[in-house]
Amino acid sequence: MADKKDFSDLTALFINCSIKKNKAESHTQHLIDKAVDIMRHESVKVDEIYALDHQIAFGMIKDGRDEGLTDEWPEIQKRIMAADILVIGSPIWLGVKSSVATMVIERMYAYSGDFNAKNQYLYYGKTGGCVITGNEDGIKHCAMDILYALQHIGYVIPPQADCGWIGEAGPGPSYGDIVEGSKVPVGFGNDFTNRNATFMSWNLMHMARMLKDNGGIPAEGNTQKGWEDVPYPSHQNPEYR
Amino acid sequence: MADKKDFSDLTALFINCSIKKNKAESHTQHLIDKAVDIMRHESVKVDEIYALDHQIAFGMIKDGRDEGLTDEWPEIQKRIMAADILVIGSPIWLGVKSSVATMVIERMYAYSGDFNAKNQYLYYGKTGGCVITGNEDGIKHCAMDILYALQHIGYVIPPQADCGWIGEAGPGPSYGDIVEGSKVPVGFGNDFTNRNATFMSWNLMHMARMLKDNGGIPAEGNTQKGWEDVPYPSHQNPEYR
Amino acid sequence: MADKKDFSDLTALFINCSIKKNKAESHTQHLIDKAVDIMRHESVKVDEIYALDHQIAFGMIKDGRDEGLTDEWPEIQKRIMAADILVIGSPIWLGVKSSVATMVIERMYAYSGDFNAKNQYLYYGKTGGCVITGNEDGIKHCAMDILYALQHIGYVIPPQADCGWIGEAGPGPSYGDIVEGSKVPVGFGNDFTNRNATFMSWNLMHMARMLKDNGGIPAEGNTQKGWEDVPYPSHQNPEYR
Amino acid sequence: MADKKDFSDLTALFINCSIKKNKAESHTQHLIDKAVDIMRHESVKVDEIYALDHQIAFGMIKDGRDEGLTDEWPEIQKRIMAADILVIGSPIWLGVKSSVATMVIERMYAYSGDFNAKNQYLYYGKTGGCVITGNEDGIKHCAMDILYALQHIGYVIPPQADCGWIGEAGPGPSYGDIVEGSKVPVGFGNDFTNRNATFMSWNLMHMARMLKDNGGIPAEGNTQKGWEDVPYPSHQNPEYR
Repeated sequence: MADKKDFSDLTALFINCSIKKNKAESHTQHLIDKAVDIMRHESVKVDEIYALDHQIAFGMIKDGRDEGLTDEWPEIQKRIMAADILVIGSPIWLGVKSSVATMVIERMYAYSGDFNAKNQYLYYGKTGGCVITGNEDGIKHCAMDILYALQHIGYVIPPQADCGWIGEAGPGPSYGDIVEGSKVPVGFGNDFTNRNATFMSWNLMHMARMLKDNGGIPAEGNTQKGWEDVPYPSHQNPEYR
Repeated sequence: MADKKDFSDLTALFINCSIKKNKAESHTQHLIDKAVDIMRHESVKVDEIYALDHQIAFGMIKDGRDEGLTDEWPEIQKRIMAADILVIGSPIWLGVKSSVATMVIERMYAYSGDFNAKNQYLYYGKTGGCVITGNEDGIKHCAMDILYALQHIGYVIPPQADCGWIGEAGPGPSYGDIVEGSKVPVGFGNDFTNRNATFMSWNLMHMARMLKDNGGIPAEGNTQKGWEDVPYPSHQNPEYR
Repeated sequence: MADKKDFSDLTALFINCSIKKNKAESHTQHLIDKAVDIMRHESVKVDEIYALDHQIAFGMIKDGRDEGLTDEWPEIQKRIMAADILVIGSPIWLGVKSSVATMVIERMYAYSGDFNAKNQYLYYGKTGGCVITGNEDGIKHCAMDILYALQHIGYVIPPQADCGWIGEAGPGPSYGDIVEGSKVPVGFGNDFTNRNATFMSWNLMHMARMLKDNGGIPAEGNTQKGWEDVPYPSHQNPEYR
Repeated sequence: MADKKDFSDLTALFINCSIKKNKAESHTQHLIDKAVDIMRHESVKVDEIYALDHQIAFGMIKDGRDEGLTDEWPEIQKRIMAADILVIGSPIWLGVKSSVATMVIERMYAYSGDFNAKNQYLYYGKTGGCVITGNEDGIKHCAMDILYALQHIGYVIPPQADCGWIGEAGPGPSYGDIVEGSKVPVGFGNDFTNRNATFMSWNLMHMARMLKDNGGIPAEGNTQKGWEDVPYPSHQNPEYR
């Protein structure tokens, strides 16, 4: 902690994938807010998207307008590409991530065969995390799904890159609800959730800082055109065993 | 690629979590071999464990001998701690990772509340990946499960940190089997599998290199004792919205 | 097989949750077609919905029009309620079921607190299955997700209630594609896929038949109002252990 | 409810797959106890196995003694075959089912190619469910994994065939723990958990009753040898589209 890191040249994008049309009703937004606050306090430039504020087409497609669909995704994609850090926020429904989160990941996936400036797959050099809320059950299941997808398309996943809140088994109040008899919104006082939101935010910043300072992931052994040129004994001699 | 990286001070540990008693029958071992070859060629010091060669106790316990159980885990734990890179290999059975892989992760988890030299959780600073084989279906499902567990306890997951092979839907030959009419063992000629094994191996080396050169993940905002001391606006004032 | 079953009073609904706007491009439809053919041959009345032919609102809502959204779901819900058997078809993208399948399940879930004529949860008495296709990997993962959701809201899941096709690890042709050098579309000759499509179709018919002949699941111990009235020793005396 | 069902000829087996060597420490056992009590009160004959009381070999094998391993599985398999209902109990560790549960399912899977008296796969005609506990998160994820495996090998899964308890996000007391200030063990007063344990128990009994009264699943379209003999239009004429 001697040499205090400067994060002011980093950009983070949070995409809230709630299935509620009205952002004001999203409980996931409350936990996103916490992570946003932490990053903003460290001078990270934070961008935010509420997915359902936009018309996004379904499909393994880059631009739905090419097929005559209404589609605001290409603008969202630009904001994803401009960000060093991406955090996907999702509610839990029936134990899994939301349809909107699934759609957002599908659309990102459609670009994943493109390349970055180093001829690596497009998202190499970026850092990813996720924020999950529900009143019942499923933080880890949703997180493993989202984080796997992000690393699969090129993101680095730092340690403890997820945070979430759920209540005890069964229906009940949701994160940030005001319930009678308590001044603190539901879950806001949960140390585990607060700790994980803090860990996630800082680990995302640390990793993005490190990647930026080191010029991203070195482009050896991991480019579509170059991977066959690195020494690879078994490949050269598959019969040897 | 101008400045060729030196990986000779890195250590990688591969744990094969096959459920076959006899290592010689493990198909997963064939794909582990590929990744091992790649890393050894780059001078990484590679250690290998075949889990079922050891007697490992079940439990959320550090040392089963404390409870009178036969348990070789503490020795395995030392080798895990000595390695910069950990790769877990697992077969797919019924679409999920093996019982042995699950047991290995449970035992690692039992130590995850301990701390590293920087007072972060124990595995912070290390890099993780996985190798999956089966003849049917489930690479991504097994990988998301294993990689999530590793990041949750402190590992960094670099891009495309998994590789695998499966055949077309249904039963059939397994990875590395010799089938009549082909000189190349099954799957050895699969470009996708070879490419992903290469990508995984190099990304693990690049990330471990970067972490080592940068002294691991900086210890700010992610230590058990320190996380409450970083600025955290929402926490300090939860009612502010 | 002595007493040949009559399935002519059964209704099955297949919902194709492809993310392709144009049904003609859906590979999943080819495998749905197989199951539909089997059921139609046995005189089951088959209804089919291609989800993206309809405008469906996101949300844990019964009727989006109540909130000013365009929403054709209520008509779909009527067709779901009219069917004894429901089969959800989904492609695999990044190892998981599609966004459209997730949206369809969310909308069904929004009605799941309603009751059937026996005061059980709404979908009690119905039978569910799924059809999955992709070119890479993930049949079982998608199936476990969909089948879990269906049983959670009240459907019975008979044995082997899923079928699917994927190719060998990596990109490649999709189910039903015509590739040079073969008269048979890709996957159509796969015995495993054909067998599982047959097993699924017949098991769905057998189970729906049995449920109809037996008046559904008896309404004891499983109604929202009645569950507390069945004998339940531990509940009556939670301190007894 | 007019014609009260008689369940006295049914047998249910509960297998507790805790990773704790000592059954007395298993929290999952408390919830298993509830379901056992319900079934016993209805005169179901209940058998119980605590997996770690037995030496079970790893492997996709029927009898480990054939390979010189210590293996008590064959006796367990007999008890599984004797039961109309199987309930697998598992704790949650790191969001997934236990290693012991995974091992138990692997061993059952090794027999799944055998046949029942009707030439269907071995487990056809039986009914399955699961009981999950943890202090953190993951009931639905564990349940979808276990229930999928059971239906895949032949079990019928009735509606709401799982039950579980977890606490609010983060570490905390486990199911059945006695905490100061409360006479009721943790979770015992949770209506959602009690309701789901009741629903599961009754639905398992209803379905097993129905299957027994109807002679199991009819053997048409679902036998290894017979499936190709049922009418199957697309198969007979794959080029027709």
